[in-house]
Amino acid sequence: MDDTQATARIGVTGLAVMGRNLARNLARHGWSVALHNRTYERTRSLVDEHGDEGTFVPSESMADFVASIERPRSVIVMVKAGEPTDAVIDELVPLLDEGDVIVDCGNAHFLDTRRREAALREHGLHFVGSGVSGGEEGALHGPSIMPGGSDHAYETLGPMFESIAAEVDGTPCCTHVGADGAGHFVKMVHNGIEYADMQLIAEAYDLLRHGTGADPARIAEIFSDWNGGELESYLIEITADVLGHTDAETGRPFVDVVLDQAEQKGTGRWTVQNALELGVPVTAIAEATFARSLSGHADQREAVRAAYAQVDPAVDSAPLAGEEADRFVEDVRRALYASKVLAYAQGFDQIRAGSDEYGWGIDLGSMATIWRGGCIIRARFLDRIREAYDSDPDLTSLLVAPFFRDAVADGLPSWRRVVATAARLGVPAPAFSTSLASFDALRAERLPAALIQGLRDDFGAHTYRRVDKPGTFHTLWAGDRSEESRD
Amino acid sequence: MDDTQATARIGVTGLAVMGRNLARNLARHGWSVALHNRTYERTRSLVDEHGDEGTFVPSESMADFVASIERPRSVIVMVKAGEPTDAVIDELVPLLDEGDVIVDCGNAHFLDTRRREAALREHGLHFVGSGVSGGEEGALHGPSIMPGGSDHAYETLGPMFESIAAEVDGTPCCTHVGADGAGHFVKMVHNGIEYADMQLIAEAYDLLRHGTGADPARIAEIFSDWNGGELESYLIEITADVLGHTDAETGRPFVDVVLDQAEQKGTGRWTVQNALELGVPVTAIAEATFARSLSGHADQREAVRAAYAQVDPAVDSAPLAGEEADRFVEDVRRALYASKVLAYAQGFDQIRAGSDEYGWGIDLGSMATIWRGGCIIRARFLDRIREAYDSDPDLTSLLVAPFFRDAVADGLPSWRRVVATAARLGVPAPAFSTSLASFDALRAERLPAALIQGLRDDFGAHTYRRVDKPGTFHTLWAGDRSEESRD
Repeated sequence: MDDTQATARIGVTGLAVMGRNLARNLARHGWSVALHNRTYERTRSLVDEHGDEGTFVPSESMADFVASIERPRSVIVMVKAGEPTDAVIDELVPLLDEGDVIVDCGNAHFLDTRRREAALREHGLHFVGSGVSGGEEGALHGPSIMPGGSDHAYETLGPMFESIAAEVDGTPCCTHVGADGAGHFVKMVHNGIEYADMQLIAEAYDLLRHGTGADPARIAEIFSDWNGGELESYLIEITADVLGHTDAETGRPFVDVVLDQAEQKGTGRWTVQNALELGVPVTAIAEATFARSLSGHADQREAVRAAYAQVDPAVDSAPLAGEEADRFVEDVRRALYASKVLAYAQGFDQIRAGSDEYGWGIDLGSMATIWRGGCIIRARFLDRIREAYDSDPDLTSLLVAPFFRDAVADGLPSWRRVVATAARLGVPAPAFSTSLASFDALRAERLPAALIQGLRDDFGAHTYRRVDKPGTFHTLWAGDRSEESRD
Repeated sequence: MDDTQATARIGVTGLAVMGRNLARNLARHGWSVALHNRTYERTRSLVDEHGDEGTFVPSESMADFVASIERPRSVIVMVKAGEPTDAVIDELVPLLDEGDVIVDCGNAHFLDTRRREAALREHGLHFVGSGVSGGEEGALHGPSIMPGGSDHAYETLGPMFESIAAEVDGTPCCTHVGADGAGHFVKMVHNGIEYADMQLIAEAYDLLRHGTGADPARIAEIFSDWNGGELESYLIEITADVLGHTDAETGRPFVDVVLDQAEQKGTGRWTVQNALELGVPVTAIAEATFARSLSGHADQREAVRAAYAQVDPAVDSAPLAGEEADRFVEDVRRALYASKVLAYAQGFDQIRAGSDEYGWGIDLGSMATIWRGGCIIRARFLDRIREAYDSDPDLTSLLVAPFFRDAVADGLPSWRRVVATAARLGVPAPAFSTSLASFDALRAERLPAALIQGLRDDFGAHTYRRVDKPGTFHTLWAGDRSEESRD
């Protein structure tokens, strides 16, 4: 095939379930889609099964695939992150022409995306790292899409991506995030926030179960009820679903037959590692990531359980009942909401810090906008975040936006009671606890960090600053304890 | 100078305060020490001021310096981590002979040390990355030394390093940690533990101050008192020192005039980033690292403080008095000890995991042994850790060693009360809280990680395992909710 016959508007290479669903979504929206996969079988089955959904242009070879796409070409690469992605890019580069666009819709690390973008720019090619959230179903019916890369690339891709993205109140869940790795960076933080959100939900469930003795079916009802209020979100909705499900084989609640060792694919870890680099305390995401690791250490858990079997876990251990139980349920709901505000505030802080560090100029309100639909953390709540950044793009923290300030202030007594109750009952609630502790640290008049600086000066002459005058100082701890200026 | 005149047993290049003190320490122990510094002035002043302490062989050029050391040569490099270290190594390599040993006593990242060790091995040279803890005073009077590198290199260095290290009960605080980067790895985790230890002390101080209304001088007495018991350690000792100190200029407690923004040099961050890589939940170190970052975000703290100025921080806020206050002080002491056990248990888990990952065969009991003296975290407590690993080198967790199990079980009710009180009073205690939460998670019969696995299967078909049979499963959530095997 020579490219005078090019008829496809965009191509997709890598037709496992995510690539396949993205291709179908594009075709359904009227874009003709070139198809390619390492083994042709997958390409054929896609055309056989869904050929009637739109215009597909299948090719067996990469060369024919590229030739079948109109210039400037847009090629979506949807293969595994890491070496497979590099291998496909290397295969594509000699076949492409200046101005063509390669789009990586996998979960690449944003630093890899920066590296690839810089390398392909040398070849006159545009490289777009694009976050895509929403899983298999989202890819087919409307995901949240977070493309990075050049403005020029977005001019080509934007109309296509915005057409296939989820839509909320007429606004597509897709926008140009920023240059080079910005899209994958934002997707990474999105996933980190998702970790925190799920951990908070899991802790709320655990607290309700141990605190009130309710069974999963009853707790499913509570979550359904919560989904009618300010917590309304996809994750709360499917939590009710999962908790309400009964295992057909045993007749037991489904959640009780699932092995309690959570797995992870790495984006939570990346988020925390990057936050440490940027100096942004994303403590809820960190606790969520570590909680998953801890759950997987089965031998250590078993050994600790055995060693403390004779030690009562709780200061007071009778489950609450009646009105007390109802009050506790409402306390947990409010604590969950406040903790969630804190976790999201930390995530948005990280996006701002990353944007500053890499010069991406990311609009935080737009990020909240494109997460309102399509993605895993979609929620009513994100409208409030969008509004907060729309009214003040330089907001120092989500916590100080009037809407969230009122919400957190309202929930504060509940939040304190719930964290205290978790400690007393022996129910691990690391994400609830760290969220409250971060809030209390942010609002503290003085932090004991002053003592830490004093200790560092004592053992290592690391110096300190003073509250009452500029400069850097050292006390002669081993001498007469006089103070020296160290500027 | 040709090397038939070599008379020095070891050389030190880089004579800022740490290098200078290590050189003096070596000379005082009878080793003749070749000296070199980029600017000769520092070399001269060392010989002028301390020439009577032993045998120094000063050189102006790197070539003369190298020639003045007996073969196989041992050369300590004590310059800034990163590029300066590489620059000095590059300058040394062509001057050295096969079998010579380069020792980096700076705070290098262990992965850099691995890289350098591999590169120098190609040249037939031994490279030792060695952790040195104890600050300036330690370097002069006896640090804790953690050398990595080859067995052969340790044969050369061991006698010298063991002679200058701190000594506890006749045992030097120096041992061969393991191959290549093992020494710097262990030093990194040591520093991470130090972060956690200091954060716990800072939280204890903050709790005592807000919980009882005691002033720093009174709290200094409490820490002095604690230093007579199971908490006895260098950090507790200098905490009493710092809290008891009065600022001469203002007459106020010193800790109240120090700016409450803690700084960091990066080893805490490295520890947590590596722990995320290894999947070891070092939550206390993470919270300590993030607490320092948070303290430095002055603008955000100011904004949050202002926004919540009208909101009462505490559920109940009157300071405790009389017997209640005494009980609270004792509760804080016990909670501090239990939290400390947890933080150290996590750090030792990370050393074991790193040792497994990189094949270092690190003896955990020996690490506790060489930290008993010289270093910042030296403490009576480390004898108990050493004993725990001596009686069971395969200990799954410090928490299950009988001594620590009894200590934690004894302190548990206090620990719960203190974390609950912190939440109620609005005193941020993230390290206390996460330590208790980690303990409760480890001993939990079931974790809500099962719910997280259910959610992941629902939105992303990530599958789950079951408690009652092997295999991997997926529920058709959007279909008839039957279960499929996915092996």
